[in-house]
Amino acid sequence: MSDAARGLDALFRPQSIALIGASTDPKKIGGRPLANMLRGGFKGRLIPINPSAREVQGLPSYASLDDVPGPVDQAIIAVPAAAARDALEACIRKGVRAAVMFTSGFGELGAEGRAAQDAMAARCREAGMRLLGPNCLGVMNPADGVFCTFSSSLTGIRPWPRIGRIGIATQSGAVGTYCHSLLEDRGAGLSHYVATGNEADVDVAACIAWLAQDDATDVILTYLEGCRDGARLREALALCAARGKPVVAMKVGVSEAGAAATISHTGTLAGSDAGYQAAFDEAGVWRARSLEEAADIAVACTAGKLPRGRRLGVITVSGGAGALLADEAAARGLEMPELPEDAQKAIRALVPFASPRNPVDATAQTGNDRTLLTRMMAIMMGEPDGPARFDVFVAFLAFVAENADAFATVLPALETLRKQRPDTAFILSMRGSNETRRMLLEKGFFLCEDPTEALRTAAALVHFGTRLPKAPAPAAAAPAAGRARLPEGPLDEAAARKLLAEAGVPFVAERIARSAAEAAEAATALGFPVALKVLSPDLAHKSDVGGVRLGLRDAAEVAAAYEAMLRQVREAAPQARIEGALVSPMVQGGVETVLGVHRDPVFGPVVMFGLGGVFVEVFRDVAFRLAPLTREAALAQIDSIRGRALLEGARGRPPVDKEAIADALVALSRFAVAHADEVASVEINPFIALPKGGLGVDAVILRNG
Amino acid sequence: MSDAARGLDALFRPQSIALIGASTDPKKIGGRPLANMLRGGFKGRLIPINPSAREVQGLPSYASLDDVPGPVDQAIIAVPAAAARDALEACIRKGVRAAVMFTSGFGELGAEGRAAQDAMAARCREAGMRLLGPNCLGVMNPADGVFCTFSSSLTGIRPWPRIGRIGIATQSGAVGTYCHSLLEDRGAGLSHYVATGNEADVDVAACIAWLAQDDATDVILTYLEGCRDGARLREALALCAARGKPVVAMKVGVSEAGAAATISHTGTLAGSDAGYQAAFDEAGVWRARSLEEAADIAVACTAGKLPRGRRLGVITVSGGAGALLADEAAARGLEMPELPEDAQKAIRALVPFASPRNPVDATAQTGNDRTLLTRMMAIMMGEPDGPARFDVFVAFLAFVAENADAFATVLPALETLRKQRPDTAFILSMRGSNETRRMLLEKGFFLCEDPTEALRTAAALVHFGTRLPKAPAPAAAAPAAGRARLPEGPLDEAAARKLLAEAGVPFVAERIARSAAEAAEAATALGFPVALKVLSPDLAHKSDVGGVRLGLRDAAEVAAAYEAMLRQVREAAPQARIEGALVSPMVQGGVETVLGVHRDPVFGPVVMFGLGGVFVEVFRDVAFRLAPLTREAALAQIDSIRGRALLEGARGRPPVDKEAIADALVALSRFAVAHADEVASVEINPFIALPKGGLGVDAVILRNG
Repeated sequence: MSDAARGLDALFRPQSIALIGASTDPKKIGGRPLANMLRGGFKGRLIPINPSAREVQGLPSYASLDDVPGPVDQAIIAVPAAAARDALEACIRKGVRAAVMFTSGFGELGAEGRAAQDAMAARCREAGMRLLGPNCLGVMNPADGVFCTFSSSLTGIRPWPRIGRIGIATQSGAVGTYCHSLLEDRGAGLSHYVATGNEADVDVAACIAWLAQDDATDVILTYLEGCRDGARLREALALCAARGKPVVAMKVGVSEAGAAATISHTGTLAGSDAGYQAAFDEAGVWRARSLEEAADIAVACTAGKLPRGRRLGVITVSGGAGALLADEAAARGLEMPELPEDAQKAIRALVPFASPRNPVDATAQTGNDRTLLTRMMAIMMGEPDGPARFDVFVAFLAFVAENADAFATVLPALETLRKQRPDTAFILSMRGSNETRRMLLEKGFFLCEDPTEALRTAAALVHFGTRLPKAPAPAAAAPAAGRARLPEGPLDEAAARKLLAEAGVPFVAERIARSAAEAAEAATALGFPVALKVLSPDLAHKSDVGGVRLGLRDAAEVAAAYEAMLRQVREAAPQARIEGALVSPMVQGGVETVLGVHRDPVFGPVVMFGLGGVFVEVFRDVAFRLAPLTREAALAQIDSIRGRALLEGARGRPPVDKEAIADALVALSRFAVAHADEVASVEINPFIALPKGGLGVDAVILRNG
Repeated sequence: MSDAARGLDALFRPQSIALIGASTDPKKIGGRPLANMLRGGFKGRLIPINPSAREVQGLPSYASLDDVPGPVDQAIIAVPAAAARDALEACIRKGVRAAVMFTSGFGELGAEGRAAQDAMAARCREAGMRLLGPNCLGVMNPADGVFCTFSSSLTGIRPWPRIGRIGIATQSGAVGTYCHSLLEDRGAGLSHYVATGNEADVDVAACIAWLAQDDATDVILTYLEGCRDGARLREALALCAARGKPVVAMKVGVSEAGAAATISHTGTLAGSDAGYQAAFDEAGVWRARSLEEAADIAVACTAGKLPRGRRLGVITVSGGAGALLADEAAARGLEMPELPEDAQKAIRALVPFASPRNPVDATAQTGNDRTLLTRMMAIMMGEPDGPARFDVFVAFLAFVAENADAFATVLPALETLRKQRPDTAFILSMRGSNETRRMLLEKGFFLCEDPTEALRTAAALVHFGTRLPKAPAPAAAAPAAGRARLPEGPLDEAAARKLLAEAGVPFVAERIARSAAEAAEAATALGFPVALKVLSPDLAHKSDVGGVRLGLRDAAEVAAAYEAMLRQVREAAPQARIEGALVSPMVQGGVETVLGVHRDPVFGPVVMFGLGGVFVEVFRDVAFRLAPLTREAALAQIDSIRGRALLEGARGRPPVDKEAIADALVALSRFAVAHADEVASVEINPFIALPKGGLGVDAVILRNG
């Protein structure tokens, strides 16, 4: 078990639970957990602590935790903030392994509350007790009857939580509860639910790490506002990936207003989104934009095996829906292989007007004879003992489930196909009650009423099924590569180039010329064509004063350009000291890219890759990964930019050497990790990616502080 | 009424309906419309036509339409394809005004069927009778009891259609019916529903034009696969915009697979998506990606007035949901003004830990006292007689509607606020049954369970409310600007520049030089710096052979560069005829853009604007509009590209003159309309947008065919 998850068994699977502040009123916050667990059939020991009652909700009660005989795994603290610290000390005295603190009035109120909260966390760490909260909604484990929560959703307004395979780890109790209600609609249930609130000790990352190794959990749904320890989150997500366990994440606090809202909510600093996105991308996390998207995908993950490829088969009872699904499949990068000729013939033999290719339009004819629909599906699937044609199969069946006669015909045939194709994911898009959704989920079908969203779900399943088997090893430790300090003094361009070149990033050659003749000589040595740049400590923007000449093709042209350039610069900037010119070979046939690193407050060095200039600044077409990077991760990073086609030979150019960019990114990431304490940012701009190799041209390193 | 909509009253509001092929079995296709209208309370005359029955479903029946006394507005044709033409002739003899043909087996089967269908359409046009279908699901108007459809959704599996304010015009009957079921879930009903099927005569555009002028219809939801007459669709959408009537569109057939699916469905060619998108953008249509999105937005449009601005107020019972909504508001360009100090104080006075700025987090405290929630809302809204603070208000209330006690407290207060703010759109995000959704809709609230999708809906309402009041006049007729023919012979660059310059597009000056001395002289006359391009009829890619020199700053440099350039080109391309060089001023300080026109098979000339090169080819950052363009539309087109910031002074540059680009686009669009028959495409690439003015550099005109 990971360090972060240590001790969390007492949180998720306690054998004995004390409730400090237990109320005899099952409706009050201090009464709800008891009432919930009495109803939910908790099989362990329930111990109410209440100084003024001998019995609470029918259970023998103790005046103080100190009076309780025998061990106590978990204690719920449901007392006002003023009494919380004492309760915590009682837990520590008793040897409680995990405390769940509902109490609010700490970090979410500002600096003072945060200090009190930090002190509690330090005390718990010292004592070896885990602390969930404060200001949290608690934890649930329906299979074991653990309902250590005051959630109003258990007070009768919602159906009782169902046992299932989805683990929810959320910072916001309310959002997590809402999301849980969406899972229930879709027929799924919980393995565990945990709301971490202010995260004085136990954070979402720790809970994800615990759920990663929990056999009752098949998929993890998380809602995050921020996190204090990026490395812990990274490690937790890597554990999930290594176990092939899908993680669906909602991360908010992206916008300024959103970030402000998270701070006032739980006192969590959101940090930059780039770091989170990098952490998610590295581990194959699916980032959902909406709660319904998250719920759809999490539930669909529990319907069967994850698809191992992106071949999609579609059948519809409406040509219109087929067109809609085909568009969405294209937009989501799913493949729709055409059916073999014989299968197409067989479909046309059933309905002459059917579209037989894929999507198959079974047409409204199927309204008269529903067996046509499932017979066509069987044809699409091919011989049961032959290879599978599709990794995902989506059927748009409109109102079939609402028509009892039709459903009675279609369902048994669907079940037969499902059993014949255990490796294919089945998604049905049709109208259906929650009852129908649950029944279908149990049989291995995910029901999604909206056809477009059915394909969003299909794409997510394909993402997990194709991405997780290639999961990276948990994040590599910082490489050995020299923990040497950066040199003292200013880090000018030359020094930055030298350091990065030593770290393994290739740079373009450059020579200094003090005269036209020297320039011509240097150009001849470097090879034509060359560029000239005026050399002056006083000129930041050389091209503005005519101080740059490009594409010079022979010695005579270089000499003439040198003279003309210096003449013009002297006219334009008479006060500037001019020391000559830099001569460098024109790097031709390449694509300008930018490699960078910045220090993220949560995740440490984050590596950036993008195309140059406006692509980064205006189109924000950049990809981030956490350092250090593996070569595979660097290649994935390069491939994830929208302008990738430019690297692959767009506009009739030869493709560039992505491996060389990847090597440079890896070298840069190792440099950044080795100097993580000292370096605020590095930018190699441009780095010219060439058909073979690549060359940095300029570099800037900024120190911390 | 528009030409396209003429005669459609008989389709949507018939007084008398004959059913040719009427069946005594109410479950058969020929029996369903009668059964539907008997159930739906159609008040006009229903006339079954059946040669072998005296009575059909209790109604007196006729052997033939010829035997029917009195006028017949509409005839439904529910006979096999072989008998359809005869039925049509009977309708024409009888003077029927609109025929609805369910019969399939025409255009969707290929060329032969299409010819038969075209012949029927021609015959109807000649006779002055409108024809819906063939291969269509028919038409509904619940308020008048018109249910001229065989839709299986009326056979008892779905609730009976509710009367409402939404008009559906769909090419696919099944998709339209499915969408209708989603509207019903959301508490809304239909004004009219029409499925056009193969569109031999009446198309979706004609139906939209009719619905535009229909007082019973507040919003139009359309599903389109393609359309044969782009001008008609453009006109219909302009009518809707002119009346301030929102149109929500699903357009499929975008991808290759999607387009293939539409052809096999109704035989409609999808055409290029650029033309449709241009038509939608021009008229302020909201293009939905999913049916649920379309349904949400259409229903929300019927809940109250459209917001006239983008100020969003948010209250939540969960800080997490507040962060989520704030992020989504930022992503969708909605503004969240901070509450005034006194309002913030008043909120904190109610709940000290509440976040009072906007989003307001009312916190879980509201679970103990629900009045806190609505009192905070009242504070947010400000004095009832003061100005409105928000154009849209979104409240995330989680499970309030499922908690009878809580809802009984909250609802009356909500209703009071709703009445005090009739100009503010209210969206509630919480769990709720369909019954709750309908009740709330009647009170002026749209309920959307998913908070992210609640904001998608809010953004759509703001789109309509801010966009439709600025609706353009219906598409201008082709301008007078000379219908002169293009000159005979090849249209080389010089000829293209000349034609476009005459049409009003400014171009950069250019001179031909036959020697180094002439080049220096031309450069001096044009002004430095200049560019040189080798002049040769044999060299397509001048820069590949060293045939371009840029940024030459004085006469000596120009002369030297001329000699060097010609020397290198002769070496690199010894066989090329070299006629000298083109000298042109370097256009500096501008942004490269591309202006273009291509002829769309559906919409005619479509004007393109984008940034140059890779922005168009790789990032597809282009915007399209239909020609001719107004200046306002051109400015909106320019502003709609993602890289707009580059035009507005990104990277420390001065902003460019968008008006000058707009003028050039307008001139180009008029040129394209004037020569629509002759011109396949025009590209001005680059057009350099400058801080003042703009200049085309190169131009290509391609003739048709």
